[in-house]
Amino acid sequence: MLGNSFGRLFRITACGESYGDALMVIVDGVPAGLELADDDIQKELDRRRPGQSEFDSPRKETDQGKIVAGVMDGITTGAPVGIVIYNVDRHQVHVDQYRQAKDLVRPGHAEYTYSVKYGRFRDWRGAGRASGRETAGRVAGGAVAKKILAREGIELVAYVKELAGIAAKPMPFEEIKKSLAERPNPLNCPDPAAEARMEKKLLAIKEAGDTAGGVIELILRGVPAGLGEPVFDKLSSRLAEGIMSIPSVKGVEIGDGFALARMTGSGANDVPYIDGGKVRFRTNHSGGIDGGISNGEDIVLRVAVKPTSTISIEQKTVNMARMEEATLAAITRRDPTICGRISPVIEAMAAISIVDMLMMARGLDDVARMEKPWGKP
Amino acid sequence: MLGNSFGRLFRITACGESYGDALMVIVDGVPAGLELADDDIQKELDRRRPGQSEFDSPRKETDQGKIVAGVMDGITTGAPVGIVIYNVDRHQVHVDQYRQAKDLVRPGHAEYTYSVKYGRFRDWRGAGRASGRETAGRVAGGAVAKKILAREGIELVAYVKELAGIAAKPMPFEEIKKSLAERPNPLNCPDPAAEARMEKKLLAIKEAGDTAGGVIELILRGVPAGLGEPVFDKLSSRLAEGIMSIPSVKGVEIGDGFALARMTGSGANDVPYIDGGKVRFRTNHSGGIDGGISNGEDIVLRVAVKPTSTISIEQKTVNMARMEEATLAAITRRDPTICGRISPVIEAMAAISIVDMLMMARGLDDVARMEKPWGKP
Amino acid sequence: MLGNSFGRLFRITACGESYGDALMVIVDGVPAGLELADDDIQKELDRRRPGQSEFDSPRKETDQGKIVAGVMDGITTGAPVGIVIYNVDRHQVHVDQYRQAKDLVRPGHAEYTYSVKYGRFRDWRGAGRASGRETAGRVAGGAVAKKILAREGIELVAYVKELAGIAAKPMPFEEIKKSLAERPNPLNCPDPAAEARMEKKLLAIKEAGDTAGGVIELILRGVPAGLGEPVFDKLSSRLAEGIMSIPSVKGVEIGDGFALARMTGSGANDVPYIDGGKVRFRTNHSGGIDGGISNGEDIVLRVAVKPTSTISIEQKTVNMARMEEATLAAITRRDPTICGRISPVIEAMAAISIVDMLMMARGLDDVARMEKPWGKP
Amino acid sequence: MLGNSFGRLFRITACGESYGDALMVIVDGVPAGLELADDDIQKELDRRRPGQSEFDSPRKETDQGKIVAGVMDGITTGAPVGIVIYNVDRHQVHVDQYRQAKDLVRPGHAEYTYSVKYGRFRDWRGAGRASGRETAGRVAGGAVAKKILAREGIELVAYVKELAGIAAKPMPFEEIKKSLAERPNPLNCPDPAAEARMEKKLLAIKEAGDTAGGVIELILRGVPAGLGEPVFDKLSSRLAEGIMSIPSVKGVEIGDGFALARMTGSGANDVPYIDGGKVRFRTNHSGGIDGGISNGEDIVLRVAVKPTSTISIEQKTVNMARMEEATLAAITRRDPTICGRISPVIEAMAAISIVDMLMMARGLDDVARMEKPWGKP
Repeated sequence: MLGNSFGRLFRITACGESYGDALMVIVDGVPAGLELADDDIQKELDRRRPGQSEFDSPRKETDQGKIVAGVMDGITTGAPVGIVIYNVDRHQVHVDQYRQAKDLVRPGHAEYTYSVKYGRFRDWRGAGRASGRETAGRVAGGAVAKKILAREGIELVAYVKELAGIAAKPMPFEEIKKSLAERPNPLNCPDPAAEARMEKKLLAIKEAGDTAGGVIELILRGVPAGLGEPVFDKLSSRLAEGIMSIPSVKGVEIGDGFALARMTGSGANDVPYIDGGKVRFRTNHSGGIDGGISNGEDIVLRVAVKPTSTISIEQKTVNMARMEEATLAAITRRDPTICGRISPVIEAMAAISIVDMLMMARGLDDVARMEKPWGKP
Repeated sequence: MLGNSFGRLFRITACGESYGDALMVIVDGVPAGLELADDDIQKELDRRRPGQSEFDSPRKETDQGKIVAGVMDGITTGAPVGIVIYNVDRHQVHVDQYRQAKDLVRPGHAEYTYSVKYGRFRDWRGAGRASGRETAGRVAGGAVAKKILAREGIELVAYVKELAGIAAKPMPFEEIKKSLAERPNPLNCPDPAAEARMEKKLLAIKEAGDTAGGVIELILRGVPAGLGEPVFDKLSSRLAEGIMSIPSVKGVEIGDGFALARMTGSGANDVPYIDGGKVRFRTNHSGGIDGGISNGEDIVLRVAVKPTSTISIEQKTVNMARMEEATLAAITRRDPTICGRISPVIEAMAAISIVDMLMMARGLDDVARMEKPWGKP
Repeated sequence: MLGNSFGRLFRITACGESYGDALMVIVDGVPAGLELADDDIQKELDRRRPGQSEFDSPRKETDQGKIVAGVMDGITTGAPVGIVIYNVDRHQVHVDQYRQAKDLVRPGHAEYTYSVKYGRFRDWRGAGRASGRETAGRVAGGAVAKKILAREGIELVAYVKELAGIAAKPMPFEEIKKSLAERPNPLNCPDPAAEARMEKKLLAIKEAGDTAGGVIELILRGVPAGLGEPVFDKLSSRLAEGIMSIPSVKGVEIGDGFALARMTGSGANDVPYIDGGKVRFRTNHSGGIDGGISNGEDIVLRVAVKPTSTISIEQKTVNMARMEEATLAAITRRDPTICGRISPVIEAMAAISIVDMLMMARGLDDVARMEKPWGKP
Repeated sequence: MLGNSFGRLFRITACGESYGDALMVIVDGVPAGLELADDDIQKELDRRRPGQSEFDSPRKETDQGKIVAGVMDGITTGAPVGIVIYNVDRHQVHVDQYRQAKDLVRPGHAEYTYSVKYGRFRDWRGAGRASGRETAGRVAGGAVAKKILAREGIELVAYVKELAGIAAKPMPFEEIKKSLAERPNPLNCPDPAAEARMEKKLLAIKEAGDTAGGVIELILRGVPAGLGEPVFDKLSSRLAEGIMSIPSVKGVEIGDGFALARMTGSGANDVPYIDGGKVRFRTNHSGGIDGGISNGEDIVLRVAVKPTSTISIEQKTVNMARMEEATLAAITRRDPTICGRISPVIEAMAAISIVDMLMMARGLDDVARMEKPWGKP
């Protein structure tokens, strides 16, 4: 859809800025009969919440998500679910700091583009709606989607695959989940050895006043074959659309992605075989998506996250009001990287996409009700 | 939108299969007063047409695009533009070949996923709507978008940046356009030396019965700052959505994309400066998009294209009807790579996206009419 | 959706003008496995076709609808269905007549509003896209929807309830269908006595150079309870939206409609009862829709159709190019009423709406799969 | 759009039930630079608020609308506007009453259809989302739209044209506005004599335990010619869609509506003339809409409102849980009519529709920027 809504049948609509009163999210298309409590929302919000380690912004937000509509006696009613999250850490001292610098473009940020788009009325308090703060709304909405996925037997995990150039070792899905559950860490990396090196490097980068980017891998297990609507609303398109809308994301690749561009067809093709009366594939170069439609294998996707734009090094810039060059002082309240906190946001966008595609397929595909075709689960 | 429509205000809706009677495309939101002739459509279709070199499929389609609605006396009327392209090369011999192999999954293709989705009713003639043939409809619709972009002073080019692991040298925008105009080549690569090596390598791959992938770069010049609708309908999201829907595309990155993940903030941030009363940026790591909104610099995007799935090497596979393993014979009528022909399709999706975003911005942004804010062109 | 598309999951997109080359319609969301032939389309088109009696325009269009996509061996494939209808009766003499009068506003027509919207580029040939000719596209698309409704056991009929002030007697659904099947008549009225009086009055009106309007009633039988998406996409909203978009329609009422405004609650409420384990209602003042959702009873809706604007009486008007008052000569090629031909168009819009709502409900309503609630069929 | 969103470019998304914690509405597409305060919202909410006279429900809701997003220093920022309205009057005694009767179908209400759709999980507290309470969200969103209309010089008014069979006299637009401003009355009727008779009749109906319906007329003045997107997204379609989605609305007619069906073309056609360099029309049978596009005259529309379903007379009904016939006791807390309070809801839906159409026209219509065609303001 447009602007502040995402999804067709299952859809989130959100509002709220970094220093506004509250974030709100309305989740439409939630089926009746789903157990849903504030805790389900909170659990996800807590994963994204800042101020929990030396690797993220010291801003202290409690991020309390409160369900105010769509649920009765702990169960969804079929009406849209409404969630509100009040902003609490918005002290005047920070607002004043933003006011003083409001005409300066922070390199890598959206001040200039928002100014062109919305003029002098744009919200300059902590980047307003361009702040990563809005992603709390996505996570709250995604929490509802995840409950539906769980009921469908679909699992998903996003984690840091690479940070500041340091890569985690390849690990199977179950091991990734287990490691992150047993050993949660601020960088959300399931490989302890790599994570230790990442921490060390990140601290050095932070010390230098700089920031780091990374690569997040998302794996979805249990997505039934047949999701995606050719030719423009493919599952790949939808996932790319949703994830590319997350602040700081600059690239998305599915399966072997850019590496496929260097392979030949004979090496890139996934060979099918029969496994217990089902069609399976011996490899998964395609990342579980053929012709834009899920094939029943794990959906695998990698996301390029740029280094945080806010650094504590003085930068050259321009003053948009005076139209003259200027200097931007070092900024101290910042995230050395957002890679450790972006996973729940990526999971949220993926979960919403999958639920939506599932609803579309069920709405559109009469075949599923008419007969069980070849190899159909 | 959904399924076979792309775009919100400016929108294409398409139908047609590889071996059906015709492809049709309806272009909605075309402004009145635009000069538009069959030739404008044909010029673009000819760039995508197969059978023009030893590097693409020998299928002989004339790809004649005929405008049947929305134009009077060579000028658009504001009514939707309708274009029809009849399929001509669909000899019974080929249909019969497809019929014989219809229950076999061609590795890398969409037979299995389409079978799960549509059951035994899916069109198995040349992959039906899963065939790259549908992209002729995109190109026809994109030709209309390109006419509008030209009127807005926006130029764009997509070209082969890398093929079978061989990279073209970095070249400035004007040089790329000039080289492709003066020296059109089947691989659509503006660097003659690299192109010669690509041809050679591709011939060897073809000889071996195999296929190659590559990386296409898209550059848009002249896109005004301010396009993109936060937070879900960003320009980056829209471009990723549209381009990821093209058959064989497995990755999209904007600006420095995945390379950004390995940089630090101080290196990745683009420093703004004042140039003739306008805000410009000294580098373009962001690919012309900040906060999901165009910043006035060139929009730069790279696309991962997988190697063509159809190879002339025998492959192991399964028979979906009998649910047993099988062997797929070598197939001879095929594209050794589609990289040389995919550029007009990528340009089409980008052009449609930009026109649509332009219309949205004009519809939504009152500010543009109320005042000229800082640095606004 | 917008402009030239109607429907969300099941959707038609159309183009074509009165004197353009062709009308095209793309039907998206068609399930695979549906028998569909040109004849299915033609049967409906023939009901709308002009030139069949003294009560409609003498324009001779063959209205041959040809399916060019989405069907293989007479069965839908899940790909969008494409239909093309070429215009044949567009002799130069008529185009020249339109050209001469192109700057004159025909009272009741859309020349002025189209001129404001599209400027001097609007298609003035037979009113272009503002002509009722575009409704052939709706009927073609509706024919596909009707095939789906038939499979779902849903029947529908639209007929002339009132013409030029003469009302048909109340008749039960089955009798209406039987009468129209056995005694098709140019005014599409199932009451022979009323129809005779209508014909007589209409001939007198025609003789006087004038035209007549009427009221069409639409009845849908067998629509399952539960269709409609609160609160903005109710079944009532959707039907009103679709039907109000038909040229010449100026009012829509559901159930007792405007008469309800004069009743009291105790008289207007439909009392439920149990009938064979199902909830039924003793009356149907609500027209089968409660709270915007179908309740399982017949859906009943009435449509106000204004008299045809084109009359063969000289009229005062203005010349838009010269901005001066002018006189419009009597026009002879015209429909004395469109009431006899509008029923298939109304049925088409209703059929598309119902199929779409059915798909939405199936996509959204998990409950339907989880359990059989009270009184659920 | 779908479910709980209305509008394309300018769009409201709402949630909240009669006895839930809060109603929320997110207004997307709000231009930056608009003065907007809680008072602007409150003024409209107060017009719809119950408990203000003997003619509406005694429920005591304060209906305090609080803007929590999209506004900075009293001015919109271009970000979506978020408004929250907490429910306050939801005493346990009422919830318990609803719980006791939850399995009984209240004739005329949506219990049965919601039960079919959402199963036993539907919110039965005061009809949940099927309650007219949700219209407070529409009114809050409409308040934002009205601010934009005011800036565009567009005025609108909805008022009771007929109640319980008693009609107000015809009055010109300015007189209607003046009368309602100077003499606000609980039935929102600008004709004092008729209003007195309406009150008297309504009291008698209320005394008898019954309820009344009526006809609301909506007039929009100053809407520029050229709004509406042929052929499916006409201004008439959009208005009908939006207004038909309001609870209790069963009919919509534009201009002379159903009366047009009884006129002849020569009487129904509005004759244009030149007035100060502009095209105007001598009559307005068409209600300001020709070919689905505004023609610059007043837009006039009438709405059929059914009598409130909740009556204090015992009614026969069914128990959905036991699937047996039952008796519904008289209900005392109810609206004798909702006609006096529905006008702001109708105005809200119309205002949202017009703003959206205005944005679409500006986004789509290049002509407006290229030249000033005939008679274009």
